[in-house]
Amino acid sequence: MRLALLGCGTVGSEVVRLLHSQSADLAARIGAPLEIAGIAVRRIGRDRGELPVDPAVFTSDPFDLVKRDDVDVVVECVGGIEPARSWLVEALRAGKSVVTANKVLLAEDGGTLHDAAAQGGGDLYYEAAVAGAIPLLRPLRESLHGDRVTQVTGIVNGTTNFILSAMDTTGAGFAEALAEATDLGYAEADPTADVEGFDAAAKAAILASLAFHTRVGAADVHREGITEVTAADVASAKAMGCTIKLLCIAARGTAADGRETVSVRVHPAMIPLTHPLASVGDAFNAVFVEAEAAGQLMFYGPGAGGAPTASAVLGDVVAVSRNRLAGVRAASESAYADLPVRPMGEALTRYHISLDVTDRPGVLAAVAGVFAQHDVSIATVRQGSAGSGVAGRDEDADLVIVTHVAPDAALAATVQALRGLDTVRSVASVLRVEGSA
Amino acid sequence: MRLALLGCGTVGSEVVRLLHSQSADLAARIGAPLEIAGIAVRRIGRDRGELPVDPAVFTSDPFDLVKRDDVDVVVECVGGIEPARSWLVEALRAGKSVVTANKVLLAEDGGTLHDAAAQGGGDLYYEAAVAGAIPLLRPLRESLHGDRVTQVTGIVNGTTNFILSAMDTTGAGFAEALAEATDLGYAEADPTADVEGFDAAAKAAILASLAFHTRVGAADVHREGITEVTAADVASAKAMGCTIKLLCIAARGTAADGRETVSVRVHPAMIPLTHPLASVGDAFNAVFVEAEAAGQLMFYGPGAGGAPTASAVLGDVVAVSRNRLAGVRAASESAYADLPVRPMGEALTRYHISLDVTDRPGVLAAVAGVFAQHDVSIATVRQGSAGSGVAGRDEDADLVIVTHVAPDAALAATVQALRGLDTVRSVASVLRVEGSA
Repeated sequence: MRLALLGCGTVGSEVVRLLHSQSADLAARIGAPLEIAGIAVRRIGRDRGELPVDPAVFTSDPFDLVKRDDVDVVVECVGGIEPARSWLVEALRAGKSVVTANKVLLAEDGGTLHDAAAQGGGDLYYEAAVAGAIPLLRPLRESLHGDRVTQVTGIVNGTTNFILSAMDTTGAGFAEALAEATDLGYAEADPTADVEGFDAAAKAAILASLAFHTRVGAADVHREGITEVTAADVASAKAMGCTIKLLCIAARGTAADGRETVSVRVHPAMIPLTHPLASVGDAFNAVFVEAEAAGQLMFYGPGAGGAPTASAVLGDVVAVSRNRLAGVRAASESAYADLPVRPMGEALTRYHISLDVTDRPGVLAAVAGVFAQHDVSIATVRQGSAGSGVAGRDEDADLVIVTHVAPDAALAATVQALRGLDTVRSVASVLRVEGSA
Repeated sequence: MRLALLGCGTVGSEVVRLLHSQSADLAARIGAPLEIAGIAVRRIGRDRGELPVDPAVFTSDPFDLVKRDDVDVVVECVGGIEPARSWLVEALRAGKSVVTANKVLLAEDGGTLHDAAAQGGGDLYYEAAVAGAIPLLRPLRESLHGDRVTQVTGIVNGTTNFILSAMDTTGAGFAEALAEATDLGYAEADPTADVEGFDAAAKAAILASLAFHTRVGAADVHREGITEVTAADVASAKAMGCTIKLLCIAARGTAADGRETVSVRVHPAMIPLTHPLASVGDAFNAVFVEAEAAGQLMFYGPGAGGAPTASAVLGDVVAVSRNRLAGVRAASESAYADLPVRPMGEALTRYHISLDVTDRPGVLAAVAGVFAQHDVSIATVRQGSAGSGVAGRDEDADLVIVTHVAPDAALAATVQALRGLDTVRSVASVLRVEGSA
């Protein structure tokens, strides 16, 4: 089995090292030795330390490499949409099997890759694209195929989980926690993709596609980041026995006309401390899967890093190599269900709303009236007065309201209407609540 | 695709129900409809409630059924070694693919089944045999094949986990917690297989075989149950910031001659509350996998029950059906490493030992001397006096010692020697400690 590697950065070089250190085991598991036919890099002469590979394998021509007759499997560790997509389409059309960790490309245009794979007859595997080394795609793609997945709820971005965990532990604000994450190497110099939820949204699209047998792209995912989560939000969550996590949620639902739908979203949410995802700290990832027969499952592990990602890549390399030796192809993309993706406004969520109100009789009645007008049912109200209590006039008080489940649009409209009440001085925070305890 | 079902009890009837309710989805995922060709049961006429299946499919002749030309896949939900083994060997030799949840048979004589599958050219899948619906075997069998698994630590028996969780929560003794588990349906009338660790040992053998590419049988597993765990042990664990779990542990190691080995064992052990397995309560299962590149992974979910087990069975049915339609066979048993199983005495463990001693100067020196003689290093000592302290004579005191890692035989010999010391009134408890925080 001869392998072409595209890119030789953190993950690529770790793949090379593991291929070398485990070569005997890999050969035994595959049934044939695994060799590196070529490594495409931008600059051939660059110092790559003590990489255990013949320097002659480096090339700066990826298009030539992926089509070479002596290449069976192409491993892509470059990332981004172009030129990675063109290289992989070329490789797949030439009948090569492809292993990639490129979540952005898969979420943006996975269909093109799946189609090219079907055309060329090779495999397309991408376990490393979501949640690093946590074996997740294979369980969704295979183990749960006898069941009906109802919801996937995941913490799939290590950077934001580190930041939110730090805010929860130390009481720090977002900026301070981000600075700490940057110092410790958990956040990149430009943290936008992580803190604005783009990375999680790409992974949500991939998970939703697998769980619901439907092509879901990055554009189908409602996305909110964590930049507006405040220390007060975190404290408020704590007071409720909750913690705040950036969740990716892909859920099956039913539209008004009775048709099945899926909704896919990424946003910060409060979850009770008793929920299995609540204890997933630091940069760890975990994905909680609910299925009709299987019940509640959770998968936990490191979500990123060179070695864990390389482990997932190599697991796929062994699988596609065995398939090639046996002359077979794995099950291809399963998108038969083709469920419509419902807009965020129709997704069913719960809100936790903190209001600064004037401490005056009748405030609660006015506020409750707004919820009723929007057909939103209130689950709990906590009223704290900063002034003299019931008899006081025009002093500050706060009102914390948690709703029952309602369409997100109705909840958003409720918040909008609350802002217009003259007894409401400000809406201090709005957070969604997930995972009822 | 035509399916023969052996057994129609809790799991079998749930498989029938799911096949019916999900038939359209299953057909789409497989690429062909899935039909029940026959169900072999002991008593054909028995009342099976509202099972959505033609009564004509029931037969009392499993040997005939598994060989029939119109059967592609055989699903076994009977359990036990015979006659299940004879039926499955017959089915596999006849070229059928087999899906089974029979952990006892796989642990006792999995080799015979694998050999028969290789001979007949069909698949042998058994995801449901370990940890119910938690997708675990497929990740070990495939996803982690590019990595080197170093240890698998699992809570794989729901009954004992329920009992130990109850003891931890309520302070109850073993007998009382077992009675509660029996009342609630978590323990069978004869709980021996669960509480004595036989069930966990069978699963440990299956996990070890997959993780280390080595045939490990039930007889290779060192097994201790939970019947001797006392309320005092549980309280002692709590005082140390730990909880007691029945663990199955399969670990890679190195023998004195430098050769790689595996050790496989099932016993109660103290684990720190900070360990991810510590929060796995009630009848849930979880398996913690450590691999060189991937790091620490955990898989969590319901370990038993008709629906979760049926979900795992059907996931396998979809996989083997797709393989048959494609005319291919999945990767067969991987046992190339063939590592020797090291005896329990050589396994590296840590002990937590509580001693009742006479409160006399020199006691600690005498006790510490015994550890030194056996080359066992002490990590922590906690001395509590029930009497007048240092100057007191012949009053009761207790000494709690936690060791560093040492060969289990050295630790056992140390405990034996402590019993012989005349300053040691009794060895109040001995528990292994796992998962350093």
